Amino acid sequence: MPDALDSGELCPFCPGNEGFTPASIREHRDDDGRWDVRVFHDRAPLFRVEGGLNRVGEGMYDRMNALGAHEIVVETDQHGKTLAELSPDHIARVLEICRDRILDLKQDPRFRYVSMFKDQGRARPATEEHGHSQILAIPVIPTLVERELRWCLFHYRRKERCLFCDILYQETRLGTRVVDENEDFVCLCPYASRYPYEICVLPVQHYSSFERDMGAESRLLSLAKFLKMALLRVEKISDKLRLVLHTEPNVTAYGSEPDRWRTLREDFHWHFEVYPELDAEAGHFDAESFYYNPIPAEEAALALRAIEVVAESSGHGPEGD
Amino acid sequence: MPDALDSGELCPFCPGNEGFTPASIREHRDDDGRWDVRVFHDRAPLFRVEGGLNRVGEGMYDRMNALGAHEIVVETDQHGKTLAELSPDHIARVLEICRDRILDLKQDPRFRYVSMFKDQGRARPATEEHGHSQILAIPVIPTLVERELRWCLFHYRRKERCLFCDILYQETRLGTRVVDENEDFVCLCPYASRYPYEICVLPVQHYSSFERDMGAESRLLSLAKFLKMALLRVEKISDKLRLVLHTEPNVTAYGSEPDRWRTLREDFHWHFEVYPELDAEAGHFDAESFYYNPIPAEEAALALRAIEVVAESSGHGPEGD
Repeated sequence: MPDALDSGELCPFCPGNEGFTPASIREHRDDDGRWDVRVFHDRAPLFRVEGGLNRVGEGMYDRMNALGAHEIVVETDQHGKTLAELSPDHIARVLEICRDRILDLKQDPRFRYVSMFKDQGRARPATEEHGHSQILAIPVIPTLVERELRWCLFHYRRKERCLFCDILYQETRLGTRVVDENEDFVCLCPYASRYPYEICVLPVQHYSSFERDMGAESRLLSLAKFLKMALLRVEKISDKLRLVLHTEPNVTAYGSEPDRWRTLREDFHWHFEVYPELDAEAGHFDAESFYYNPIPAEEAALALRAIEVVAESSGHGPEGD
Repeated sequence: MPDALDSGELCPFCPGNEGFTPASIREHRDDDGRWDVRVFHDRAPLFRVEGGLNRVGEGMYDRMNALGAHEIVVETDQHGKTLAELSPDHIARVLEICRDRILDLKQDPRFRYVSMFKDQGRARPATEEHGHSQILAIPVIPTLVERELRWCLFHYRRKERCLFCDILYQETRLGTRVVDENEDFVCLCPYASRYPYEICVLPVQHYSSFERDMGAESRLLSLAKFLKMALLRVEKISDKLRLVLHTEPNVTAYGSEPDRWRTLREDFHWHFEVYPELDAEAGHFDAESFYYNPIPAEEAALALRAIEVVAESSGHGPEGD
């Protein structure tokens, strides 16, 4: 296991270097007692858990404290392994730990939104090669999620159906934008997606909340196997990628606005959004949130389907994992 | 004047290479009859002017043609000169030509929004060093502009005052976020801006439309002088920058919705948004349109004010310009 990178810089996420990071909030240890998944508070957090929001008006503007939590989930003890390269069992453990951290943070009614995301191959230099996800608990709902929630509610009020269930129904029958599917999950290239080769992974069964959906071990393992295949495909397109979980907001934070989220469990459908990062030339054109994507979703799905990925057994691999 | 770059690639924006670009829509020629500003259709346009929108439903989705216009304004015959490095007279000519192109395109009621933007130091390799702006006419209003318009209207309905006029009133009295001001224009670092060292340049007098405001030559020259100073400051922060003009939508495209833009000329205030592009490390953090800006606007304004820039006379410079 390396404790220094080619650049000579030390990787704080490698075993033996735990002293360079805050203490673990949660760890999983293998049979030999060594950790293989580890969670801790970010050393330079974007949000801090102490104190109140302290909402104030500064002249005509509004200000509040950056109240929240920002945690790092180191996904493996092996420097240089991506999430997709880990065994399904191991990925399931990462998902389980993310689930538990989200459930734990959602007990705090000051946090309106708790989710996870992952920037693979583009974090800080010393850690970009060491697989990790990030958990973020924040006192507002991010703009894009809020817009998605609004449109889901709008659709539900008119049709009494979940927008994402409708998308699944149409896409799986049509097939041209589907990358992969089984009885539990579907991976598709969204119609008119913002980014080339953007994919969406979502459960076939309607569930508004990732963390509640992922209750059973069998469910975690099924997602782990499916997500592994999807990420292996995307990795063939680009070694830089972003993964974002969209899950229901923290309903306990909306005690004063029960109407706001009354239908949430019917109208929202959790999903992962994954987009590879390509060169600017092949990428998107963003003038004021106006996206230009030169690769149609049907073409992207065709290319992603054509990538050969081998499903792995969930048993213990040769590395004892 | 170079006709090949260091890379050996030919610059299609240099004099002598006009054959590599479409024919000029508009040119300005100097006393010797050589062009020094030139406009033509983009060779690989994002939008095309021919045909109709052809709105159709594809299953549950909506599709329409990429109807519009995409024009390139080559700002100078001198390869390697930035807009800020040109003389005020020359900058005024560029602004005048952009104004005229916007006014011309706004006569087409199929276009709901016509504006200009500029990506300095990050366009296609062969032309990134040759100063140019882009004019875009599109059949929708970009998301961020639409949101700005909605909030301006919301503010106006409650207060019967323009939101940007209120910002100007507060900011010029407070001063901490002001970079530069004179009787015609103000340059400020917006409160809680998305990007480090982001600036906003706006007219003191209320005007919803850049292209109508810029009617007189004296007004164009005043803006040219002011914008030059602002851009010179930003160039000291980064050689990559983006400039976007926010101006009123094409009111003639809304004949069927007169109510929608009834108060537009009272509630909207045109402005330039300019942001330098910094390294990812020093930059912003965008998880689902959630911005993290490590440089407070007050600090950015202080740094930008401290940058020494010399106001230039608008007379003909040593290069005969």
